[in-house]
Amino acid sequence: MLTGLNVAILGGDARQIEMVRKLNEWDATLHLAGFDQLDYGFTGANHFDMDEDLVEKFDAVILPVPGTDESGKIDSIFSNQQMILDEDWVARTPEGCVFFTGITNDYLNSLFQKVNRTLIPLFSRDDVAIYNSVPTVEGTIMMVIQNTDFTIHSARVHVLGLGRVGMSVARAFHGLGAKVHVGVRKSSHFARALEMGLSPFYLKDLKEAAGECDILINTIPVPIVTASIIQKMPGHTFILDLASKPGGTDFRYAEKRGIKAILAPGLPGIVAPKSAGKILANVISQILMEHRKGEQQT
Amino acid sequence: MLTGLNVAILGGDARQIEMVRKLNEWDATLHLAGFDQLDYGFTGANHFDMDEDLVEKFDAVILPVPGTDESGKIDSIFSNQQMILDEDWVARTPEGCVFFTGITNDYLNSLFQKVNRTLIPLFSRDDVAIYNSVPTVEGTIMMVIQNTDFTIHSARVHVLGLGRVGMSVARAFHGLGAKVHVGVRKSSHFARALEMGLSPFYLKDLKEAAGECDILINTIPVPIVTASIIQKMPGHTFILDLASKPGGTDFRYAEKRGIKAILAPGLPGIVAPKSAGKILANVISQILMEHRKGEQQT
Repeated sequence: MLTGLNVAILGGDARQIEMVRKLNEWDATLHLAGFDQLDYGFTGANHFDMDEDLVEKFDAVILPVPGTDESGKIDSIFSNQQMILDEDWVARTPEGCVFFTGITNDYLNSLFQKVNRTLIPLFSRDDVAIYNSVPTVEGTIMMVIQNTDFTIHSARVHVLGLGRVGMSVARAFHGLGAKVHVGVRKSSHFARALEMGLSPFYLKDLKEAAGECDILINTIPVPIVTASIIQKMPGHTFILDLASKPGGTDFRYAEKRGIKAILAPGLPGIVAPKSAGKILANVISQILMEHRKGEQQT
Repeated sequence: MLTGLNVAILGGDARQIEMVRKLNEWDATLHLAGFDQLDYGFTGANHFDMDEDLVEKFDAVILPVPGTDESGKIDSIFSNQQMILDEDWVARTPEGCVFFTGITNDYLNSLFQKVNRTLIPLFSRDDVAIYNSVPTVEGTIMMVIQNTDFTIHSARVHVLGLGRVGMSVARAFHGLGAKVHVGVRKSSHFARALEMGLSPFYLKDLKEAAGECDILINTIPVPIVTASIIQKMPGHTFILDLASKPGGTDFRYAEKRGIKAILAPGLPGIVAPKSAGKILANVISQILMEHRKGEQQT
């Protein structure tokens, strides 16, 4: 339980709604800023403004999944008011206060180097990445069905990368009856793909593999689906790039060749905001409970 | 091969494009009516009007998947011209001419009772229903993802019916990590569901089961998801009804209770017209080849 912990939630999107619900269940005391347009009666959640003295009581602060922009601005889909996270504000929180964000950026990194507070970028944790791979896979399936006129079943699907997302994608498409080929670099990934009943190939042979591909799903965040790869693909191939921006695909060339290619990072928040919010709330509460236990022991 | 067979295709949708392609591969002589707006160079396909004498040469006639309307009108998405299938026209075809439709209706049934020709409603064949369950499943997955804010993974999914479509739906959702419960009537279906690792229940206990349901997928074409069932469901339950029109759900009551319920028959033609067309083309050509063999033997 999180009884007695003061947790602030600054802006965000539909995922925050589920976080509020979950953290409430665990009895945290919740303070919301940037939710003024939300007509939703949260019992037990208190609305505050960022300039209130309340900040001095916070044990944890939850930023939106994208964190801030490069000038410190915090976005909220539930408010038009301007919210800025600056050094001053962070310094006013108690020393043990923990900050959560989905991803971090130069602005946040340099701010938290100056102020002695902990910033936890949740998306770089292995557990969050694996939990998030579930809604990512479902979003991937949805986008593939929407963008092809043939079934996933019996299609030749190439998944590049057998990491936290690639493994989930490969398994799900295999389960739907696709012929799944997995492009890997490591021999251990080659072995794992074989064990899973999939057809692995080494990424150095991607050019040859590309000729026999109906759907290509990339999870590797380096330029890998290059023009010379795309050039080998059948005209009906659909490319979905799940790697973080700017993806690993030469989108300019794909368009030129008339091959449909879409960059789709951040699917969990789009296709299953409730589940995505629950994933983050679970991990946040786990971290806070461990944190509290650690403090009580010292 | 279908060399020398004269096959007419009257109207239809994107599925017909794939049929033309496939039947062409098998060397049938193709005659198209109702494709005047299609800018697509089919080599080897001849365009004709329904009043031409050509009708006297046809070995097979393929109607659109919905057949005709109740006045004999044939729809085509590639044409504005009026096409009517009447007794006169059917009687002008050679005696051995076989007619294909997806589904039949009172108009077609009574017409073919009067004229001595064979009408084959493809969708009532077991093989077509099972092949078609593949794109149906994918459309189902797509619609469920689009209409819920939680993941299929870990959701409690109730599938009503373990027939040709129900079995494919149950297996696919199980593969995606859902907790799949299958409502059945027969003890053999109960046994099969257990063997598949699913949780079966008897449909007479549907009311109790409904209270623990996030997603309900109905495949049974009788009024089964009644108001008293819907009344027991959690408010977030999503109902997708795959049974043929008018489905098995009390949509009026679902709307009144604020439960999202959608009737979605005919998904294959929507989500994967190419695959759906290929399925029909394969079965049609198989039937025509058997038919021809039978004629040669007599």
